[in-house]
Amino acid sequence: MKDVHATSPRHGRLSLRQVGVTGIKKPLHVRRAGRVITLSASFRVVVDLPSTRKGSDLSRNAELLAEVVDRTAHRPVASLEEACSTIARELLVRHPSASESRVVASADYFLPRGIDPSRESLEDFRLFAEARASRGAAGRVSVARSIGAEAVGMTACPCAMETCREQLAKEFPDLARRELDRLPMISHNQRNRTRLTMDLPEGADVEADRLIEAIEGAQSSPTFAILKRGDEAKVVIAAHRNPKFVEDVLRDLLASLPKLFPKLPDTTGLRAETTSEESIHKYDVVAEHRTTLGELRKNAGA
Amino acid sequence: MKDVHATSPRHGRLSLRQVGVTGIKKPLHVRRAGRVITLSASFRVVVDLPSTRKGSDLSRNAELLAEVVDRTAHRPVASLEEACSTIARELLVRHPSASESRVVASADYFLPRGIDPSRESLEDFRLFAEARASRGAAGRVSVARSIGAEAVGMTACPCAMETCREQLAKEFPDLARRELDRLPMISHNQRNRTRLTMDLPEGADVEADRLIEAIEGAQSSPTFAILKRGDEAKVVIAAHRNPKFVEDVLRDLLASLPKLFPKLPDTTGLRAETTSEESIHKYDVVAEHRTTLGELRKNAGA
Amino acid sequence: MKDVHATSPRHGRLSLRQVGVTGIKKPLHVRRAGRVITLSASFRVVVDLPSTRKGSDLSRNAELLAEVVDRTAHRPVASLEEACSTIARELLVRHPSASESRVVASADYFLPRGIDPSRESLEDFRLFAEARASRGAAGRVSVARSIGAEAVGMTACPCAMETCREQLAKEFPDLARRELDRLPMISHNQRNRTRLTMDLPEGADVEADRLIEAIEGAQSSPTFAILKRGDEAKVVIAAHRNPKFVEDVLRDLLASLPKLFPKLPDTTGLRAETTSEESIHKYDVVAEHRTTLGELRKNAGA
Amino acid sequence: MKDVHATSPRHGRLSLRQVGVTGIKKPLHVRRAGRVITLSASFRVVVDLPSTRKGSDLSRNAELLAEVVDRTAHRPVASLEEACSTIARELLVRHPSASESRVVASADYFLPRGIDPSRESLEDFRLFAEARASRGAAGRVSVARSIGAEAVGMTACPCAMETCREQLAKEFPDLARRELDRLPMISHNQRNRTRLTMDLPEGADVEADRLIEAIEGAQSSPTFAILKRGDEAKVVIAAHRNPKFVEDVLRDLLASLPKLFPKLPDTTGLRAETTSEESIHKYDVVAEHRTTLGELRKNAGA
Repeated sequence: MKDVHATSPRHGRLSLRQVGVTGIKKPLHVRRAGRVITLSASFRVVVDLPSTRKGSDLSRNAELLAEVVDRTAHRPVASLEEACSTIARELLVRHPSASESRVVASADYFLPRGIDPSRESLEDFRLFAEARASRGAAGRVSVARSIGAEAVGMTACPCAMETCREQLAKEFPDLARRELDRLPMISHNQRNRTRLTMDLPEGADVEADRLIEAIEGAQSSPTFAILKRGDEAKVVIAAHRNPKFVEDVLRDLLASLPKLFPKLPDTTGLRAETTSEESIHKYDVVAEHRTTLGELRKNAGA
Repeated sequence: MKDVHATSPRHGRLSLRQVGVTGIKKPLHVRRAGRVITLSASFRVVVDLPSTRKGSDLSRNAELLAEVVDRTAHRPVASLEEACSTIARELLVRHPSASESRVVASADYFLPRGIDPSRESLEDFRLFAEARASRGAAGRVSVARSIGAEAVGMTACPCAMETCREQLAKEFPDLARRELDRLPMISHNQRNRTRLTMDLPEGADVEADRLIEAIEGAQSSPTFAILKRGDEAKVVIAAHRNPKFVEDVLRDLLASLPKLFPKLPDTTGLRAETTSEESIHKYDVVAEHRTTLGELRKNAGA
Repeated sequence: MKDVHATSPRHGRLSLRQVGVTGIKKPLHVRRAGRVITLSASFRVVVDLPSTRKGSDLSRNAELLAEVVDRTAHRPVASLEEACSTIARELLVRHPSASESRVVASADYFLPRGIDPSRESLEDFRLFAEARASRGAAGRVSVARSIGAEAVGMTACPCAMETCREQLAKEFPDLARRELDRLPMISHNQRNRTRLTMDLPEGADVEADRLIEAIEGAQSSPTFAILKRGDEAKVVIAAHRNPKFVEDVLRDLLASLPKLFPKLPDTTGLRAETTSEESIHKYDVVAEHRTTLGELRKNAGA
Repeated sequence: MKDVHATSPRHGRLSLRQVGVTGIKKPLHVRRAGRVITLSASFRVVVDLPSTRKGSDLSRNAELLAEVVDRTAHRPVASLEEACSTIARELLVRHPSASESRVVASADYFLPRGIDPSRESLEDFRLFAEARASRGAAGRVSVARSIGAEAVGMTACPCAMETCREQLAKEFPDLARRELDRLPMISHNQRNRTRLTMDLPEGADVEADRLIEAIEGAQSSPTFAILKRGDEAKVVIAAHRNPKFVEDVLRDLLASLPKLFPKLPDTTGLRAETTSEESIHKYDVVAEHRTTLGELRKNAGA
């Protein structure tokens, strides 16, 4: 059979950075704390294409993905990023003309949460993983991995809180300002969606659950699926005693990482982004930052 | 040329309710208060198919849509629903074997809003329209139309407000309950998205702006794009003095309609649905209802 | 604690059809052919609200959902629709003032597929389920269920095929028309997405896998994740030998059901909808129909 | 009034790269070939935040956006990227503590298209624009802009075409291979979605319509809203005589740019990405590349 992909392309000198498949959904079986969980994951699997080849053999990507992911039904993997890493490495074996491969995956993820143990239930988060394999000198392959997680929580605005207090102080001049200062003050509060991604140096490992806990710790309050009447008050009061801008969420999240991940190297790359779906606006408010764990340690130490 | 669509289908007795095209986007020019505005609208255009024909002539749908919508660049129409109505009626001319046609459209829509005139800007809403033409006895065609609109506003929860008050009364026994009752109390508040749709009897007409105003009047507070510091407090205080469940939003909206639309007939059909993107949960809370203006008038009169 | 939900609403006579929660995601464990699979499912859980109550006790919905779904980790259920059914029934117990409940769910679903056994892998489909419980005379509760599935396949257009043949016959007058008629002719082909939903009478049961097979049987060809070079030709040739309009897909699907489901009662409700993401247009082509198995049997028998 | 945003943050040394608002929709009026068109655009407007400030004054972003965009109703701008550029520059005036601003926008866009003049209608494309303003030495502000466009067209697979030919040659040994080689051969074809983005050096300008034409020229065939029966054959035959992998679309697009944009400088940055929504798979196939016009000129000249 004629191998059309291997023929020379019309524009001889143009290599391409990424060619592959995307939107392939698969159930991935992962070991977690003595159990096996199933992620309904979506994958993007690409390699570069040298200028000498017309096409990339894409059926190899789908085939490899099936081999690695489908077999986890019998032999679960340690994590989403391990699956990505295995696929990225093997892609370079099956695409001998490629020098770099990239696998990106995301999935819904469930963890038990509750305002107290009697209210516990499984709540949904998102997992992200990425692996990039590069063929270096003497054919040695190195793999860079990143792991990310997203959690939805709540923010209460510290600024509207102040201006409400001032407004109400004017409206109720007989109320001692002292009273107004003691009570948690009304503000706008809303869903906050925060994502943290870590670029892990070789050998370093981190569990997604730790990223999610770090995010939840940086929002005004985590949110919960089951809240009986009294519980709602607890969450609302807690959030209003811990008001945060998106800027605060991002800074508090980043500033918490040196203590939470003491063993990760300074070179660990970090990306954090947070979105508050403002209740007083029709649009969202966002903050984003990129840094390294080393930078954050310098800041913290100073 | 052989007309494949007109040949007999394999399964001779099976007529189909709806066959057509969907996801066609077009700029539609509409007259509004002395100006012409442009809607970036998306259309679904279908007719039924009798059991005697293999296929529906879909190129006629795309052609008709282009004729009616593209010419509005020179001759704007009165409204999105008028465009739907014209297309629905003409579809039955161009599909002589069809007995019913249906055109559904939606578009972003902008209206000036502001907490005061100096803060006014264009904010975004959604418009919906639908027209169904039916071929009746003696070939007479009747057209049923519906018009809908969606607005995002804010709700503050009345229940969390009560339980926060109780909780804080316990925590601060020295604060007279009277003080706590006077102050607007903290609660969870969030984006609320409400849609109202009216099935209009022949001859009846209603402007989308009126539906949007009705929705905004039923939420705890409208929201605004531009809020300087003091403005935020006004919105937050107003919303907390007007706390609403989704149930309240829906009932208040429906109950307001008899007064707002005194001239519309009793047979006017109504659908209302509201979603609060709860700040204390990761999921949404919804309410939905269908009724008629006549029913609402009976309730109001009682 | 004051029960705000139980107080009287402002607009005393307005009951609401549906009040509840939506967008709750949960892992649901389901028994399938000797194994347990995990669905990452999304739920909508609502009840009606009588005119005498201000609010519905929504925390009961989230609590019940957690109870029923989270426990499947230890005791898997038979199906998504069984889970919906259990929740719908129990909702009426926990909402004594409600007379109707409704649970809607959807999930990604994976089945092994391959053009031959050596190419088999897990491919993705969608599952849908709905259960409606109604409190009838003497408090007897009845539950109506529906089950749906969606599969992506391929259609090749029968009309463009004819006109291409005519065009090429003119261009190559020396080619005997007989030659042109023997060869599968070029056409536009594209992704087709078809959904079939069955409203099941009490006692009747159907497996989602059967719905998916029925859909795949009605498209020009199923599609596959893994296709090595020769396999692609097989799929392409098969699809071009079985060209279909969306109208054909829908009719062939519906016409196949009496034979595939001989034991289901005549009252079984059916909804089918199909969308071809046309390769020669920027928009989609759709067909939809609703009928009953009884109607289809009458047609088939005639 | 207390200025909460201006207070010192808890974590004193942490500046943030991007803080702002996103998802603000606005109608933007743009001059185009003697007419004014209205884009329904969505904006993201952010600035950096120094370590010394707790919060960014986000109301300034919304206010500025309204000023610049709403006034285009009376004074239309030249382009989406001009609007972004104006906003980015003015952001640095209104946020004196920021050193970089970034405005990202996207909108549906309509151009007349038709297989011949009698079939012409408005078809939908997408526009993208971005502007980044930086405060340099001596307070001089420089603005980098990028402009992008996306067009949907059609690809027919060159590989399946070859294997179908081989398969059919085996099946019909009496058909001279010469016959099979002359006829356009069946293959899988599908929607292709391609986006081209240019990072423009200061002073350089390019019209979005040119990007869209470049994309359409690189696909197997453009697609059309209105195709009467004979027209479909023309598009299908043209696409099958011009079969392309995603790799070919991307290379042909990139290779065409030096000739299409002879006046743009070598430093013009380019990003191109293309997705084919494969008709024989449930997943998409993608290719991506980044380069400069200078690089492409070197390749072309060689």
